[in-house]
Amino acid sequence: MKAELISIGDELLIGQVINTNVSYLSRKLGEIGIAVGQITTVGDEPKAIAKTFKRAWKEHDIVIVTGGLGPTHDDISKASVAKFFKKPLVLHPATLRAVKERFKKFGYAKMPESNVGQAMVPKGFTVLRNQAGTAPGLLFFERKKAFVILPGVPREMQWITEDSLLNLLKKKFAAKSRGVIQHRTLITTGIGESSLAELLGPVESILEEDSTLAFLPNVPLLRLRISANGKTGREVINKIARIEKSIRAIAGKYIIGVDDDTLEGIVSKLLSDSKKTLSLAESCTGGMLASKITALPGASKIFLGGVVSYDNSVKIGLLGVPEGVIEKFGAVSEEAALAMAMGIREETKSDYAISITGIAGPTGGSQDKPVGTVWIAITDDSGSQAFHYQFGGDRQLIRERASIAALELLRKKLLGSL
Amino acid sequence: MKAELISIGDELLIGQVINTNVSYLSRKLGEIGIAVGQITTVGDEPKAIAKTFKRAWKEHDIVIVTGGLGPTHDDISKASVAKFFKKPLVLHPATLRAVKERFKKFGYAKMPESNVGQAMVPKGFTVLRNQAGTAPGLLFFERKKAFVILPGVPREMQWITEDSLLNLLKKKFAAKSRGVIQHRTLITTGIGESSLAELLGPVESILEEDSTLAFLPNVPLLRLRISANGKTGREVINKIARIEKSIRAIAGKYIIGVDDDTLEGIVSKLLSDSKKTLSLAESCTGGMLASKITALPGASKIFLGGVVSYDNSVKIGLLGVPEGVIEKFGAVSEEAALAMAMGIREETKSDYAISITGIAGPTGGSQDKPVGTVWIAITDDSGSQAFHYQFGGDRQLIRERASIAALELLRKKLLGSL
Repeated sequence: MKAELISIGDELLIGQVINTNVSYLSRKLGEIGIAVGQITTVGDEPKAIAKTFKRAWKEHDIVIVTGGLGPTHDDISKASVAKFFKKPLVLHPATLRAVKERFKKFGYAKMPESNVGQAMVPKGFTVLRNQAGTAPGLLFFERKKAFVILPGVPREMQWITEDSLLNLLKKKFAAKSRGVIQHRTLITTGIGESSLAELLGPVESILEEDSTLAFLPNVPLLRLRISANGKTGREVINKIARIEKSIRAIAGKYIIGVDDDTLEGIVSKLLSDSKKTLSLAESCTGGMLASKITALPGASKIFLGGVVSYDNSVKIGLLGVPEGVIEKFGAVSEEAALAMAMGIREETKSDYAISITGIAGPTGGSQDKPVGTVWIAITDDSGSQAFHYQFGGDRQLIRERASIAALELLRKKLLGSL
Repeated sequence: MKAELISIGDELLIGQVINTNVSYLSRKLGEIGIAVGQITTVGDEPKAIAKTFKRAWKEHDIVIVTGGLGPTHDDISKASVAKFFKKPLVLHPATLRAVKERFKKFGYAKMPESNVGQAMVPKGFTVLRNQAGTAPGLLFFERKKAFVILPGVPREMQWITEDSLLNLLKKKFAAKSRGVIQHRTLITTGIGESSLAELLGPVESILEEDSTLAFLPNVPLLRLRISANGKTGREVINKIARIEKSIRAIAGKYIIGVDDDTLEGIVSKLLSDSKKTLSLAESCTGGMLASKITALPGASKIFLGGVVSYDNSVKIGLLGVPEGVIEKFGAVSEEAALAMAMGIREETKSDYAISITGIAGPTGGSQDKPVGTVWIAITDDSGSQAFHYQFGGDRQLIRERASIAALELLRKKLLGSL
């Protein structure tokens, strides 16, 4: 039993919007034992939509369409579905009331007329309420199959999925779902894809029946995904545990986390477990590292604060970097990085402090210090160290790599291996 | 003439990775007049891949496959392509040399054996060099069609696309390309999707032949995309200009930018044009706003720096917020927001300063100040103002919305309409 996800929208075909809906839906469906077999994107074009509906409905047991449910004229999914299933569109009074109430709640005197269309549904379809917007989801069971339409706005699509859709699909397909699929991802750093593959040797020596191993590089991290299926959850979990053990026995020293772990999450947990605090002085990354760390709930336990010292006057004024250091060595130098880290640590009294100063480009580089030159310093009670990097890539990638390098330094420091 | 993009990888079907490759390729193909008709994602499964190749090659003139070109066993695109076109895999000596050199350059004593596979190519295919990684791209012209395989790692895929692929496709299909398609997006704020649709009235009164209008909501911005085609670039540009003029005549006051403009880009340009500087004091957004602003090249002209005052001690120490203000009103209050903004402005001597303090959750809320409560203050020579917000959504969305609200306040301030 497999599902196909269909996304509708010219904005996806011209590359204006990145399709995050399908990764969300794939994850959620996976959690209830439904595997996605194909993802298809087509434009706002009735013929292409009809053809795709026909093929997908033939090939898969579950079809979930996102997009094209809004109130404006370019939203045509619902009409396409009504036509495909030969159902007339009928008014759904409860939805009309909900849409009107929503407009009232947000202070509109009256609902724009075009929103009446939101309450028209193909006859016989189940309406999935949407309290995050005005367009409801729609569900149709036919024999052993399910056809679903959801709005394309991620927040609304997610609201409906979690409010009703997953439960309805689970109930319908629980009995049919043959076996269990599970995944486990090991996150490694410090080794390349082919070197790790060579180190691990032939995958047959690691894997068991009905299991696979995938390498997912995303420099500087390389993820290793173990997938396995079997009859019961217990069987699959045990199988994955044995495979993970084999991998760890060979390449354990490169593994820094699992599944959805992020470097900032790993470092934050190390800080939190050891009841230590951090402060930051960021120049070229401009707050990116602080933003990553504070994106995690509970960041206030380990993160005191930081200075984004973009202009030299801020390095001098708020961080106490001696003017002479900047004059003599430049703002991107070992000396400036060390002074920045020590400055923010002294100011905040944090246990650890990190500074990042560099040239993110596209301009500002020189022969001696080309674009991509970055100095990162780390300081604590035991002393201070600074590290030089030369990153490739564009401005955004250099900033990203500098943030990741700083986290990796702190991780090593916290593990006593720096 | 239309293209189909095919992405291969189980990681996409289980939702582990968001597919950014297809939006990049769609944009780049659009720039050379090639429209994408469909995007398809399938797993690392030879049968599904073969079926998709067959259908896509029948339905489209250009097929571009990404993913499945790496050195490890789970990468099977190349074998599938060789089989589909009934071509043997042969060694490409120049690629083998390039791969070996790349390993040498990165300090490896020798190339892992598994990388020899990278240099095997289906006979008759053109090799597209890859200096951002080891797997080359592959291109095959058959009669009036083109089949392309690219690595799935975004950086490598992009490198090959820009180094050779676009030029080769342009040369091959320039003559065939019938007519020109262009898009123009108007970015609005302060009005909902259906209200804007109602305000504009029937689209027929605005549009012309061979043109469409799409509404793309992404709260708090709503984008309005005009698409038009015609015989020549000039004809299409003029058509779009007339449609844009009609829209601006009706809804001009809601339009804040066009195409790839971002709110931070618009605000930065306003600052830069008026030679003014900005500083920031961020609490709940934790550096996110500074990171957005410094992501833009040339940010150093308008952005002096900021303080991420996560802990109250940092609000007091670095921003000079009086301890009594925090004790009496709390860190999330009008008074604290004003003191933070005035503090960072005094410290940096910037023309404008903005502060953000709030409760991003998931914990930390109270009856009086629930999760989502945010105060934003803005200050300049003319005085200071603070604004209260109550945002919905999770931690990440609240931080995002607070950052956007701050930018929108500054935009209004710079235009004299706050």
